[in-house]
Amino acid sequence: MPKTIDITELILRDAHQSLMATRMATEDMTPACEDIDKAGYWSVECWGGATFDSCIRFLNEDPWERLRTFRKLMPNTRLQMLLRGQNLLGYRHYEDTVVDRFVEKAAENGIDVFRVFDALNDIRNLQRAIAAVRRTGKHAQGAISYTFSPLHTIRGFVDLAQKLVDLGCDSICIKDMAALLKPQPAYDLVKGIKEACGQNVRVQIHVHATTGVTMVSLMKAIEAGADGVDTAISSLSLGPGHNPTESFVEMLEGTGFDTKLDKNSLLKIKKYFNTVRPRYKEFLSNITGVETEIFDSQIPGGMISNMESQLKQQKAGDRVDEVLAEVPKVRAVSGYPPLVTPTSQIVGTQAVFNILMGHYKVLTGEFADLMLGYYGETIGPRDPAVIELAAKQTGKQLITCRPADLLKPEWQDLRTAALAMPGCNGSDEDVLTFAMFPQVAPKFFSTREQGPKNVGKDPNAQPDAAPASGTQSAPHDTGKGPVQTKITYDVKLNGKTHRVTVKPA
Amino acid sequence: MPKTIDITELILRDAHQSLMATRMATEDMTPACEDIDKAGYWSVECWGGATFDSCIRFLNEDPWERLRTFRKLMPNTRLQMLLRGQNLLGYRHYEDTVVDRFVEKAAENGIDVFRVFDALNDIRNLQRAIAAVRRTGKHAQGAISYTFSPLHTIRGFVDLAQKLVDLGCDSICIKDMAALLKPQPAYDLVKGIKEACGQNVRVQIHVHATTGVTMVSLMKAIEAGADGVDTAISSLSLGPGHNPTESFVEMLEGTGFDTKLDKNSLLKIKKYFNTVRPRYKEFLSNITGVETEIFDSQIPGGMISNMESQLKQQKAGDRVDEVLAEVPKVRAVSGYPPLVTPTSQIVGTQAVFNILMGHYKVLTGEFADLMLGYYGETIGPRDPAVIELAAKQTGKQLITCRPADLLKPEWQDLRTAALAMPGCNGSDEDVLTFAMFPQVAPKFFSTREQGPKNVGKDPNAQPDAAPASGTQSAPHDTGKGPVQTKITYDVKLNGKTHRVTVKPA
Repeated sequence: MPKTIDITELILRDAHQSLMATRMATEDMTPACEDIDKAGYWSVECWGGATFDSCIRFLNEDPWERLRTFRKLMPNTRLQMLLRGQNLLGYRHYEDTVVDRFVEKAAENGIDVFRVFDALNDIRNLQRAIAAVRRTGKHAQGAISYTFSPLHTIRGFVDLAQKLVDLGCDSICIKDMAALLKPQPAYDLVKGIKEACGQNVRVQIHVHATTGVTMVSLMKAIEAGADGVDTAISSLSLGPGHNPTESFVEMLEGTGFDTKLDKNSLLKIKKYFNTVRPRYKEFLSNITGVETEIFDSQIPGGMISNMESQLKQQKAGDRVDEVLAEVPKVRAVSGYPPLVTPTSQIVGTQAVFNILMGHYKVLTGEFADLMLGYYGETIGPRDPAVIELAAKQTGKQLITCRPADLLKPEWQDLRTAALAMPGCNGSDEDVLTFAMFPQVAPKFFSTREQGPKNVGKDPNAQPDAAPASGTQSAPHDTGKGPVQTKITYDVKLNGKTHRVTVKPA
Repeated sequence: MPKTIDITELILRDAHQSLMATRMATEDMTPACEDIDKAGYWSVECWGGATFDSCIRFLNEDPWERLRTFRKLMPNTRLQMLLRGQNLLGYRHYEDTVVDRFVEKAAENGIDVFRVFDALNDIRNLQRAIAAVRRTGKHAQGAISYTFSPLHTIRGFVDLAQKLVDLGCDSICIKDMAALLKPQPAYDLVKGIKEACGQNVRVQIHVHATTGVTMVSLMKAIEAGADGVDTAISSLSLGPGHNPTESFVEMLEGTGFDTKLDKNSLLKIKKYFNTVRPRYKEFLSNITGVETEIFDSQIPGGMISNMESQLKQQKAGDRVDEVLAEVPKVRAVSGYPPLVTPTSQIVGTQAVFNILMGHYKVLTGEFADLMLGYYGETIGPRDPAVIELAAKQTGKQLITCRPADLLKPEWQDLRTAALAMPGCNGSDEDVLTFAMFPQVAPKFFSTREQGPKNVGKDPNAQPDAAPASGTQSAPHDTGKGPVQTKITYDVKLNGKTHRVTVKPA
């Protein structure tokens, strides 16, 4: 009997987040839901990540309503969300009771599986959310943000997995957002987790396709004992997205593994999204091939092009090589954070500042916070001299406690503020929407009754490809925004003001 | 010590043949040759296949001159060509001394490695070419055309490999033109060949990327002992092309295998072809993702769309499902040929005829030839009733001998005819050019002195994407043409003439 590998389908969340700037409207998803529900997936990732933000910022959609729609249309499939630990779906740490409330409401509205991660792998940023999920009786999946550095080891990741198991996680996810996970480390990591935590500990693998190696990593991971993998239906796969579901199904033939997915349903889902994709042409990623430079540069492709445009704006386009060489140094100074949102932008922008204005002459507020511990603990020690500069520039203290421990109870204040807004319906869900995006929610509340705004267009009435999709601007406070936001810094140095605009990698 | 896996780089032949209709001009290749020569490839496939045809048909280039250019610019790397056995690079069987002469001249002009294949895997179609290569002292690589059917087994392919070894081949290639080779069969096949033929028999794997599974197949093949694989530099990879060279290099880290390729050279080659690719936008394949339907339908994606357009021309667009269901039946009737050029077109067109005009009421000339043995032996028996129809319709006999045994010496006639043409330079190379493409060569000879015609264009001055690239028409006699040729049949049935146009899949 072949071992069944469980599949999490990403089409309704990460696939369109990675390939079309999270712009897909609910009404473009619902026609596929019946087939998705019939295909036999272990779960469907369909909520969280950047979708919440995108719903209220670009689509005039209530994200909670989207979730309830999925719940109704897919009664037989586990609905899964991605949750950024103590950040929930927003861009700051939330006080614990807000975390509790969010998880309760997500479960109540339909989420079965919560994948919880933290960009720094600081277990203290995960604890509260995981405990909250356990109280709901839903599936708590603890995720490890995969990266490599001189300090990241298989042993270290296995220890983290053990901590997640100790917190009561129902499964462990290895989450590789930059397609860095090569076949051999994939094998070693899964083997290590299974040996240390027990063969019964469920391991799920999430990889992107960007570097072209990760389909092989999935194979080696399941040879090492992985129980499930994430894939996306082929019509919205590859490039910065994920490996195609149908290819994964086919590749297992005769190997002793099997997905038990219904191929006929997959074909229908594929054909359907083939018709949706061209409507979002202007948001489509213009990367369709592979990029392997990240293995040497440590710098994700999108981050390089953003730094290049920052430098050009400063009329310093000729200094890109200096900046690229500076990035790994800034990463070392800041204790080797994984270079993913938000840390890729924080480190990248600081590297630009270092080159343009001198080493650590000016720190961004975010970089200072990272150095002072306000994002959590980094794997490596951070440079004491730069910590001192950060403290001096911001007037803040270095902290070593769990960042959320510094927060005061805030639910009542959030509730009061939300309820005062025109269009707020008074539900806890609306309060949470306001809590996540205080700058965006008021406008959304006031326009909600106009109904969803589908930004997809007739493919023949659209401009070519995508660079334009990065130019949507967004409010100042969403500095770690994953969608297509940008932040503008006014930096004063020697009496001269520099305006620097930063986009997420 | 990791085992070194040898890499054959496809960028100069199959990559642009698969992705940009074989249109790349020599002058767009030469700037990369120094880096290619330095990268440490085992060989560079750079000649043969459809490139010869494309040179004289579209680019006004002398293919022999292209080869000599490569030889000069890449003195340290084996130059490799793809040879269609007794067909050489043309669309019919050639008499043995023409085969000998072609191989001699190719070796003399610079080819080091001859990959020799036959679409039907009829060893008799390979013998003469392999013997000719051995006489030159160059590397003879015998290729197995991989497919699956109820009759194709690992055992059968291993037996074929043994026959190729017995013919004196220096290596065996498993050639998977339709991306059908899944990981487990890849493993079993290599293991089987190594066990049956000896661990020292060198095995090379050629796969396309179309179905999204074959990067994993390469991994499993080398785990089973494969010595080399084919890849293409990433900027011209994936889709109907091949797996990216750089991804293959990276994926091996820590596995006990290594390519020893110079990553810095690969990066330069990648960046260079990134600048070339957009110039050929109008020829680029519009398939960038994966297609897995072939595993069930047996019908390559390109073949389906061609059959659809044939049917539409006949105002029978609603009968496509019937035709798709007919294809496997026609394949069974004709003894399960692999569905690749030319057999995919032959079988596909007959399926269309069967549905539009009744089962085997009208046979195409090519299908009749296939049934009567004029392409060689098929793996399975062919339907005796249809063989009889074919004999009746064409007046030809069923043959069981090697098809080329029926040919009379032809070199002198070819030479005489070629030399009579304006612009023919009297060399054996020119005679061979004429022999390959008697319809195209005369025009080429007469225009050769005008020099190469680069069909690449400023990317801003081009129409979108590619469907147009299939509409280039080509002379009637090149029915099995691999480039972008089409054939028009006038079919008379019950007094009514039907005009049916067929393009290669």
